[in-house]
Amino acid sequence: MLKIAMAQMEVIPGHPDQNTATILRMIQQAKDQHADIVIFPEMAVPGYLLGDTWEQPSFIRDCESYGRDIIAAAQGIVVMFGNIAADWEKKNNDGRVRKYNAFFTAQDGELVQPDGMPYPFIIKTLMPNYREFDDTRHFFSLQKLARELGTTPASLLSPLTLHIGSEYYSVGCLLCEDGWSDDYELSPLDVLSDNDRVDFYVNISASPYTLGKNNKRNRVFGAQAAEKQAPLFYVNCIGLQNNGKTVYTFDGSSTAYNAQGRIVYTAPSYEENLELVELDAMDDMPDASPIAEPEIAHIYHMLHYGIHRFLENIHMKKVVIGISGGIDSAVAAALYNDVLGPENLLLVNMPSVFNSETTKGLSQQLAENLGCNYMIVPIQHSVDHTIEQLESTPVTLLRDGKEQHLQVSSFIAENIQARDRSARVLAGAAAAFGGGFTCNANKAETTVGYSTLYGDQSGFLAALADLWKHQVYELAHYLNDVVYGREVVPQGIIDIVPSAELSSAQNVDEGKGDPIKYPYHDYLFRSFIERWQKATPEDVLTWYTEGTVEENLGCEPGLVAKYFPTPADFIADLERWWNLFCGMAIAKRIQAPPILAVSRRAYGFDHREAQNGPYYTRRYRELKEQLLSK
Amino acid sequence: MLKIAMAQMEVIPGHPDQNTATILRMIQQAKDQHADIVIFPEMAVPGYLLGDTWEQPSFIRDCESYGRDIIAAAQGIVVMFGNIAADWEKKNNDGRVRKYNAFFTAQDGELVQPDGMPYPFIIKTLMPNYREFDDTRHFFSLQKLARELGTTPASLLSPLTLHIGSEYYSVGCLLCEDGWSDDYELSPLDVLSDNDRVDFYVNISASPYTLGKNNKRNRVFGAQAAEKQAPLFYVNCIGLQNNGKTVYTFDGSSTAYNAQGRIVYTAPSYEENLELVELDAMDDMPDASPIAEPEIAHIYHMLHYGIHRFLENIHMKKVVIGISGGIDSAVAAALYNDVLGPENLLLVNMPSVFNSETTKGLSQQLAENLGCNYMIVPIQHSVDHTIEQLESTPVTLLRDGKEQHLQVSSFIAENIQARDRSARVLAGAAAAFGGGFTCNANKAETTVGYSTLYGDQSGFLAALADLWKHQVYELAHYLNDVVYGREVVPQGIIDIVPSAELSSAQNVDEGKGDPIKYPYHDYLFRSFIERWQKATPEDVLTWYTEGTVEENLGCEPGLVAKYFPTPADFIADLERWWNLFCGMAIAKRIQAPPILAVSRRAYGFDHREAQNGPYYTRRYRELKEQLLSK
Repeated sequence: MLKIAMAQMEVIPGHPDQNTATILRMIQQAKDQHADIVIFPEMAVPGYLLGDTWEQPSFIRDCESYGRDIIAAAQGIVVMFGNIAADWEKKNNDGRVRKYNAFFTAQDGELVQPDGMPYPFIIKTLMPNYREFDDTRHFFSLQKLARELGTTPASLLSPLTLHIGSEYYSVGCLLCEDGWSDDYELSPLDVLSDNDRVDFYVNISASPYTLGKNNKRNRVFGAQAAEKQAPLFYVNCIGLQNNGKTVYTFDGSSTAYNAQGRIVYTAPSYEENLELVELDAMDDMPDASPIAEPEIAHIYHMLHYGIHRFLENIHMKKVVIGISGGIDSAVAAALYNDVLGPENLLLVNMPSVFNSETTKGLSQQLAENLGCNYMIVPIQHSVDHTIEQLESTPVTLLRDGKEQHLQVSSFIAENIQARDRSARVLAGAAAAFGGGFTCNANKAETTVGYSTLYGDQSGFLAALADLWKHQVYELAHYLNDVVYGREVVPQGIIDIVPSAELSSAQNVDEGKGDPIKYPYHDYLFRSFIERWQKATPEDVLTWYTEGTVEENLGCEPGLVAKYFPTPADFIADLERWWNLFCGMAIAKRIQAPPILAVSRRAYGFDHREAQNGPYYTRRYRELKEQLLSK
Repeated sequence: MLKIAMAQMEVIPGHPDQNTATILRMIQQAKDQHADIVIFPEMAVPGYLLGDTWEQPSFIRDCESYGRDIIAAAQGIVVMFGNIAADWEKKNNDGRVRKYNAFFTAQDGELVQPDGMPYPFIIKTLMPNYREFDDTRHFFSLQKLARELGTTPASLLSPLTLHIGSEYYSVGCLLCEDGWSDDYELSPLDVLSDNDRVDFYVNISASPYTLGKNNKRNRVFGAQAAEKQAPLFYVNCIGLQNNGKTVYTFDGSSTAYNAQGRIVYTAPSYEENLELVELDAMDDMPDASPIAEPEIAHIYHMLHYGIHRFLENIHMKKVVIGISGGIDSAVAAALYNDVLGPENLLLVNMPSVFNSETTKGLSQQLAENLGCNYMIVPIQHSVDHTIEQLESTPVTLLRDGKEQHLQVSSFIAENIQARDRSARVLAGAAAAFGGGFTCNANKAETTVGYSTLYGDQSGFLAALADLWKHQVYELAHYLNDVVYGREVVPQGIIDIVPSAELSSAQNVDEGKGDPIKYPYHDYLFRSFIERWQKATPEDVLTWYTEGTVEENLGCEPGLVAKYFPTPADFIADLERWWNLFCGMAIAKRIQAPPILAVSRRAYGFDHREAQNGPYYTRRYRELKEQLLSK
């Protein structure tokens, strides 16, 4: 009756001391519950997303040292855990010490030697090198090691034999991507099962949350267990890790699949959890598939956890939000209020002459609904002073003494307002309140840089910047209907036309607002960034000629005809946004705050960008010419 | 008499149309000069640093299409060039189309098929995956292809046979990193020479400028030619490419090494250049090694080119610089003035009550020396208004109606001043002047975040952020002595104590200034970032116990004893800066402007960081305890 404990721990990236303390505590818990084996996640000691901290030899030695403590603690129990492993005699291709992403198994205070491996640990075979992943930058793969040794990965990879009590168990050990081999020429799972009998598989992971990934994993891993007719234990960490610009939650959701591929256990998401599963009982355990929830519920849980942990990490206890009476700041306010409580939240409304009574009233209403701190700081005096000062101060060309005066256009004045709000009022108010201020940009605005740098583009975190505008509205409904159970985001804010209110051309009471037509542009922009095969104007124009734009974008049918009477209109719109997406928006994203990642492609380190300006392919130019000459 | 033309072209990243036009023009030039072969750089068609643009299938197809134009133009001349190559039937490990970083050779309008290769082009073998390089993210290496085909790289890699006139030539073709194989298990150069006779080698590169790299390359490549007793043609591009946060110049410096490894030709750096070298004449050509220049001359040339091309790329013709009377902004002003001319430069001095007559006078002097545009915009009124507004506006906790008032401390007021200058005055003035404003931070400040976000940390480009403070001073001297030949940066600015002048505690006339002791901290901070084996407090404290701190850091001897009378002082200083380096400074760098890369390690994409907070290893804590208990 082998008892396997799945230790879904929080991993603190870059803090092996804290992680080792957690591991030692959970080993004791597992022993107290008479577990035979306890399994910890991939990179449980160092953390996973560490940037170039891997280039510090002292950090690597420190992780090795804590690893020895864990090995020593493996008394009366088998401990499986992920850690960095170094071979100080060998080099990586960057000339630095050889490092492996490794799977350690310890028993009786010693490491269990895997058959065929030249080291007392198992090495990750498949190295993800897309999205936020940089494994190949730091870790030497099993495939490269095999090449170096003049052998094949298959000859190095075999099930680990565990001797527990009087029994021998053959365990297929995998590290995260090793279980996602569809696009690789090698399947570690197949190699393991080809070589030997496998009693069960263990996949230790450090798998960041992505909307929809858990469903896919349950299909893929369930099928693996069923195909191999052996149980599979997936142990993932919880926590928050980041690559600077992009912040990922790790939801855990550790899962046990039985030999039929059925889910017999799912750990609660975003919670530390130690669960014992009896190997022999798995066939008879009831179905434990996660309860299906709407996407927006997942998004809410992820954002709540992400905001909460991010604030803890940077030791921030209070938050200031500039609220405009629009949907993005209102949803941000309701979210942060939910995380921090009203006493730690300060909402600031900063009207100018362009702000309507409507939005000022809605702001007040939002703050009252939440019961949080509120202040009104008008900006008109400061904005007027800035414009007056810039226009009245002489600019002297000292070479010849000629004087000129700067002219502040209405467009420049719009940006002056936005910066006055954020860099003057909010930054000062946040410091005095004892916290930071938020960036409330959504993903559509972020895509095309519909924002002001050092203005509404600034803040300590952009929690909503991986949500399209339609998802922000869904979140507003979810917060009202489910989280609060009452109208905290006023219906008026949900109903009003989205507008920056920075000029009389953006008068909400006259229905004037943003130039972004969200029901269409949300989806157009999504095709630029989230499609695995990224779309460019060539693709979009090809769909236009075929009449399949809405179908390919996934938006409501009929929008193209509604918004763009002629091909020239369609093309002008497409180029306008593509130029911004590849132009000023990149410059703004380079200086934007960290983003909480939700989707399969978030801005920042997940989607790497160069400031190279817009480009149109030859085929695009041909298509355009054909369409315009008709 | 084989004539080989080395086409050192400017590559515009992400613009295959422009690059192809350049290539076609230079092919014609080479033909006009009766060249037999013309060689273009690596990735000459698409550019090299493109971020995830490689994930757009339409962009890849476009590059293929332009590649066909180049192949068709190879009439009466052999054209060697770098381009992306796709195999639309196969996949990369990310599931996207298979892409190779490829070396094409065209003759008589067709590609020359390399022996052993399954494609009509040569594939890059070694994939740099450190610093700014992300090759493995996008390109499938020859090694991976060999593994997939069940063969060895050596069986795929052999010299290319060219039939020119009545002669056959055997050419060893290499792509950039293929010539830097020291840390790899395979040397493409050795494989090529083992298989066959090689008449000459060609290394096509896209090699970003790094201080000192050219000297190293001349040693390494010269030795390769001498060892193989065959000439080597190194063809690199010029231009500016970026990874968003980090901006690289490409200096060209294309070089011909003869069969003795001697340099017989060096192309001028940062200039388009087509040079013909006669293969048979190389033994008798005179030495053409680049003239040794001081480092600061290289830095100046690189910055001048980088600033110039960056401004062109973003179509910016005018620049605003806030000048304080300190060294960083003065050097920035002299540099930009040199690039743009005084009529396109506006210097703005923004005094508060804390700014001394000394620095105000020095600012005026600097502007007069340059003869550029100048304005003085005092900030005290606006700062006072902001503080008054924040302190007098009631903050109401709406839950219970309780009121409080925010308090603006003197520290908060310092940041209010910095933001008032940048986000209010400079951003507004730059927009009205028709340009952008600069960030003048140096690398020491950038390391520890000694700056204000949305204040002096902001701007469109941080041109000096990869220079240590002592390099900024060297640059001031170089600008005065060599570039201008007169004192443009006033001696008073060079002599004055560095100070932010944001409070009375930073009074320059009383000799008070920055908390950073540059003669020591420049070198301490450098050890955190630029050492290939990155140092941490554990290493520094180990050196301290050994008495080898200055030796290991490379700073002046005696500084440790001078600045830190006791171990406790030394440790307090070390931890103060390490905490900032790993803490707030990362948050600031995430939102910092793009940086021009000079050194072997620049902030940004070159040095990847996670916001994980400071960490001290177990060994560090032991050492500290030993030192403090003495």
